[in-house]
Amino acid sequence: MPNDKRAKKSENFSEWYTSVLIDSGFIDYSPVSGMIVFRPDSYFAWEIIRDAVDTQFKKSGIQNVYFPLLIPEKLLEKEKEHVEGFSPEVAWVTHAGKSKLDERLAIRPTSETIMYEVVKKWIKSWRDLPLRMNQWNNVVRWEFKHPTPFLRSREFLWNEGHTIFATKEEADAERDEVLGIYERVLKDYIAMPGIPGRKTDYEKFAGAEASYSIEHIMPDGWMIQGPDFHIDGQKFSKAFGITFLDKDGNSKFAYQNTFAISTRELGVLIAVHGDDRGMILPPKIARIQAVIIPIYNSGNKAVVLEKANEVYASIRNKVRAYIDDNDAYSPGWKFNEWELKGVPIRIELGEKETKSGKVSVVRRDTLEKTEIPISELHNVLPRLLDEIHNSLYNRAKKYMEAHIHEVEDFKKLSEIMEKSMGAARAPWCGSHECEMKIKEDTGAKIANMPFDAQSKAKGKKCILCGKEAKYIADFARSY
Amino acid sequence: MPNDKRAKKSENFSEWYTSVLIDSGFIDYSPVSGMIVFRPDSYFAWEIIRDAVDTQFKKSGIQNVYFPLLIPEKLLEKEKEHVEGFSPEVAWVTHAGKSKLDERLAIRPTSETIMYEVVKKWIKSWRDLPLRMNQWNNVVRWEFKHPTPFLRSREFLWNEGHTIFATKEEADAERDEVLGIYERVLKDYIAMPGIPGRKTDYEKFAGAEASYSIEHIMPDGWMIQGPDFHIDGQKFSKAFGITFLDKDGNSKFAYQNTFAISTRELGVLIAVHGDDRGMILPPKIARIQAVIIPIYNSGNKAVVLEKANEVYASIRNKVRAYIDDNDAYSPGWKFNEWELKGVPIRIELGEKETKSGKVSVVRRDTLEKTEIPISELHNVLPRLLDEIHNSLYNRAKKYMEAHIHEVEDFKKLSEIMEKSMGAARAPWCGSHECEMKIKEDTGAKIANMPFDAQSKAKGKKCILCGKEAKYIADFARSY
Repeated sequence: MPNDKRAKKSENFSEWYTSVLIDSGFIDYSPVSGMIVFRPDSYFAWEIIRDAVDTQFKKSGIQNVYFPLLIPEKLLEKEKEHVEGFSPEVAWVTHAGKSKLDERLAIRPTSETIMYEVVKKWIKSWRDLPLRMNQWNNVVRWEFKHPTPFLRSREFLWNEGHTIFATKEEADAERDEVLGIYERVLKDYIAMPGIPGRKTDYEKFAGAEASYSIEHIMPDGWMIQGPDFHIDGQKFSKAFGITFLDKDGNSKFAYQNTFAISTRELGVLIAVHGDDRGMILPPKIARIQAVIIPIYNSGNKAVVLEKANEVYASIRNKVRAYIDDNDAYSPGWKFNEWELKGVPIRIELGEKETKSGKVSVVRRDTLEKTEIPISELHNVLPRLLDEIHNSLYNRAKKYMEAHIHEVEDFKKLSEIMEKSMGAARAPWCGSHECEMKIKEDTGAKIANMPFDAQSKAKGKKCILCGKEAKYIADFARSY
Repeated sequence: MPNDKRAKKSENFSEWYTSVLIDSGFIDYSPVSGMIVFRPDSYFAWEIIRDAVDTQFKKSGIQNVYFPLLIPEKLLEKEKEHVEGFSPEVAWVTHAGKSKLDERLAIRPTSETIMYEVVKKWIKSWRDLPLRMNQWNNVVRWEFKHPTPFLRSREFLWNEGHTIFATKEEADAERDEVLGIYERVLKDYIAMPGIPGRKTDYEKFAGAEASYSIEHIMPDGWMIQGPDFHIDGQKFSKAFGITFLDKDGNSKFAYQNTFAISTRELGVLIAVHGDDRGMILPPKIARIQAVIIPIYNSGNKAVVLEKANEVYASIRNKVRAYIDDNDAYSPGWKFNEWELKGVPIRIELGEKETKSGKVSVVRRDTLEKTEIPISELHNVLPRLLDEIHNSLYNRAKKYMEAHIHEVEDFKKLSEIMEKSMGAARAPWCGSHECEMKIKEDTGAKIANMPFDAQSKAKGKKCILCGKEAKYIADFARSY
């Protein structure tokens, strides 16, 4: 619902963020603290993202599977680093009906352990590899930090890719393919740029040999991790005994990867694209792409509504349209309401328009208004949606680039953190000591080491210790 | 894997059922008793069913949402009959990390309670109705009876339709639409007939005013409940306070329905369509619709494989095809393997075929073999898949009809149960006493009261007490 007292994005981002999510009807809180309700607009958006990723996974030969929600405690403990990473936030099932269970069951925080315990039976020889699986499911991680819808939720939806290869080379080669799929979907569907790179050993996934991520910069200058990809090497295959006979008849441990994209992206897109008036939905994931608002009084209601229906009929096969003919609210109220909901295009139509044959079309992203002949709408609107998409992407990219600061001076890095100016892209020697010291002094973690920036490390000195730099890293406060 | 010692469907259905599911690679057991792993073939089949239902729901105006997995204990208790029905099989979360929770959380056995507690805030006036929602998710019901894959699983996947109306008339009108969608999807996608009808008050859903179901007859003569639809009336709206202001400004309780189709259908289709050789997948839900088996020796391998690839290329845009060129197994072994997996069409191709330009095409359902020119395959195979679909449906329907016995004599009903001959369709006075007595004496429950048969009740006498019959009911042993 429109509300003049709502926080402004430009003034209080975090209050703005949750209030637009709730007030727009995108989500709601639930009786379980930290778990949200996906209302139709948000679930629709997730379905589009999911299906886009899924289509590309299937083309690439990845097959969907579904493993149980619950994991016996002993299984979860099988890979040491993995359990240490996850057990602090596991939700435990201890009873069924009135019976106490013999062994506690974890609600999956991720499915490595239950999958690999089963999958090892499916693999006999090199002929059974690669085995590339994925599942779309819900996971629970009982975060004790302040939960934030989408960004830090106790339950979220995601894909879990789990792939198994005979050789390290094949496993490694999958990384660029999968990160490429994620990057394309982010760009093509939610108009979202990101920074792909490698996580540090300290920040990597619990159980992985190396983790890679696509990072986003939020409106408050903090970074947030988007989709990720993990090279697990032989860590899990050794813990679970996933072996195969190679062509020479020797038993070998397999190489594994895992990867994910989650509903967190919905939070990122709302945060990045929105403005003081509310959400701005990228057209591809908007359940309603164009809202038609008829403006009438008791005298001309019939003729205006007839024209509104005519407009609807002429565009409905090209865009997802909706007529808001709710008599309980004024047109002005509705303008605000649909701006809050972030619907990409508004079509205003009153008595004048029934005569002129033209309607006013308002873009949500720029609020620009144009008059367009009704007969042209079915051609103009799809193009306009593309334009809005591209413009959102370019704006988000510009914002991102403007908030990455290449620095070589530690004071400058500290200032960037203090003033929440974004990421400090700085040379780093690669030592855990410097990584920790910087974190303690400035609150900045290393989001990742961007692929694109690594060529610049040569000849540079670590921003903290001054020793030779091995990497260029993006330092930022992060979610 | 093929296995001569596997139980035959005709001799030991229940052993056959689980062994073909496991041996074919359709599913696997998991480390959690009663929870199964959906391998690619079964999850693919579920995706097709889900998407078919989802498309029709969306056309009908139902919108997808997603509510949390966990439900606070107090909420679950809010509707008395509902909690009594579900609490004996609820899995309880009591701890998160190392902390004991203040209140136990149920893993959803179904989502009425958590949904309605939230949704009531969304409804103010008649303008907000109808509110027709659906979610696709996983639920847990800790069955203490012997679990059977798909048919009685401790976790299953389903849709939960939850709709809210201003009037009883609108709510009632939804029943035929939704049951019609389910019936069409069963027929068009998994070639499965069913018997739609009303459940008795004793067998209805916990919390519903009236339940309706589509029932199937299994190969052992027992019945199993398929998709269902529940008229909840104002039971939940009164328990949760779901009210709206009508056009006159009066506050009223809303009318609600719920409905579901679940992964149980995968079990039903495997059970009904399969034969002694293994599964028979209806073509629409088969991940691989046609398997090409090249038959070669070291001398002619190259030329045969080349032809196999040519065949594949010529049909891949029309059917989901796969070449089994695994050297580790003989063609005969592969024939058995793919028959076990239930792939609808097998294409055999050896040196002879590279010269004749024709291949042998074998239907899985009838095992009929025909020679078809390679140049014709892209036209013939889609038609053949349709034929297989129709033939499976007709066979299943014939089987179903042959196992419904119209009886008016209690002895006959008892005999049908004793000999597992299927359902006894019999007149019933409608009293709970007769329903219970028949169950005690014969093991038969009332699956439902088929819509189609009700006109025949007039003038008939109850099969047990001899009083005037109100209904015609299908009595059967049931899953």
